[in-house]
Amino acid sequence: MKSHTEYLTLFIPSEVDFVNITAKVEEALRRSGIQEGLCLVNSMHLSSSVFMHYAEQALKKDQQHTLELMTWLHPSEARASPFPQDAIVDDDLDPQHKRRILGRDVVVAVTRGSLDFGPMEQIYYGEFDGGREKRVLIKIIGE
Amino acid sequence: MKSHTEYLTLFIPSEVDFVNITAKVEEALRRSGIQEGLCLVNSMHLSSSVFMHYAEQALKKDQQHTLELMTWLHPSEARASPFPQDAIVDDDLDPQHKRRILGRDVVVAVTRGSLDFGPMEQIYYGEFDGGREKRVLIKIIGE
Amino acid sequence: MKSHTEYLTLFIPSEVDFVNITAKVEEALRRSGIQEGLCLVNSMHLSSSVFMHYAEQALKKDQQHTLELMTWLHPSEARASPFPQDAIVDDDLDPQHKRRILGRDVVVAVTRGSLDFGPMEQIYYGEFDGGREKRVLIKIIGE
Repeated sequence: MKSHTEYLTLFIPSEVDFVNITAKVEEALRRSGIQEGLCLVNSMHLSSSVFMHYAEQALKKDQQHTLELMTWLHPSEARASPFPQDAIVDDDLDPQHKRRILGRDVVVAVTRGSLDFGPMEQIYYGEFDGGREKRVLIKIIGE
Repeated sequence: MKSHTEYLTLFIPSEVDFVNITAKVEEALRRSGIQEGLCLVNSMHLSSSVFMHYAEQALKKDQQHTLELMTWLHPSEARASPFPQDAIVDDDLDPQHKRRILGRDVVVAVTRGSLDFGPMEQIYYGEFDGGREKRVLIKIIGE
Repeated sequence: MKSHTEYLTLFIPSEVDFVNITAKVEEALRRSGIQEGLCLVNSMHLSSSVFMHYAEQALKKDQQHTLELMTWLHPSEARASPFPQDAIVDDDLDPQHKRRILGRDVVVAVTRGSLDFGPMEQIYYGEFDGGREKRVLIKIIGE
């Protein structure tokens, strides 16, 4: 069995943004030499996500909506919140809620040396607390 | 290390429906000959899900409720939505939101040649945009 | 390739609670002797979760809020629910909804014999229907 580990370092200047990291994962897979196996890609911070999403510009519109939805879930920023006014809420939790909704990681099959997912799927990094360096782990095992 | 890859093709005539695919995953596992390892099962489309759910008829009632919840999360179909009327929303996003909530994939342990999960757990395929063929990937690695 | 399987048994006396199980997963990893690979940890019950969360006391406050959010999502306990009064809802579904939101499992990389995740990440067990024994599966494959 072979294994391969890489850490991506990302610096996103804005507080919230999304970056397609599929090409970087494909490069790591090429370097690994692994033909058949599993590839885990995960954010190493509680204020960012790794998730699978649409392979197009539609991203912007969808994400805008998704972020609206997520922001709305956070009482301190919601006008129409069903939560009582006295709910104990910490602003630090907002990025964590966003991560919980979009997800921490993706697990992707490796088949014949390539990432084996749907034709419209791409791997994205979601930043919810930018302005500092963050790390993403890529772990590939197989043969 | 052994690896085994199969693609299920599903055609769900209705727009939204749920199918228990546990038996199909077990057949793939049998064909793989793998006794100890990990099994990834994922939808290859942004408008469908693979997720773990209750092993009984309760599915119907729960899913009905879950779908109500998910539908409600989608502004264009919600009466009591907290979103502004001018929110940019695309109808194509509805299946994607459903997928985000139910999930893209499941990772299951393989122990002594069997799927190793709880006695009430089963693997389901969720269709949110039926009427055309969709694919599900089964990837098993181990020995 | 090596594989290692352990089942944790947990008894949580209260209906809802959260337990950091990172040390138990690390012990299992040590016993496995695996240096490079993947580790799956999953709840084997539909009324409990395994998820990644903040490595501090902040847990309490966050979870309190998260549970509020989750409870609110469940119509039978919500005052401001957008669901029609006649929605078919079963009380047994509440723990399942909580599980769906927090998640069933985590997949963690194993690098140089250690769990390879972010410095603030820890593995938690979430109980939503306590008072009876529950099981958590730890499966590690690698070499």
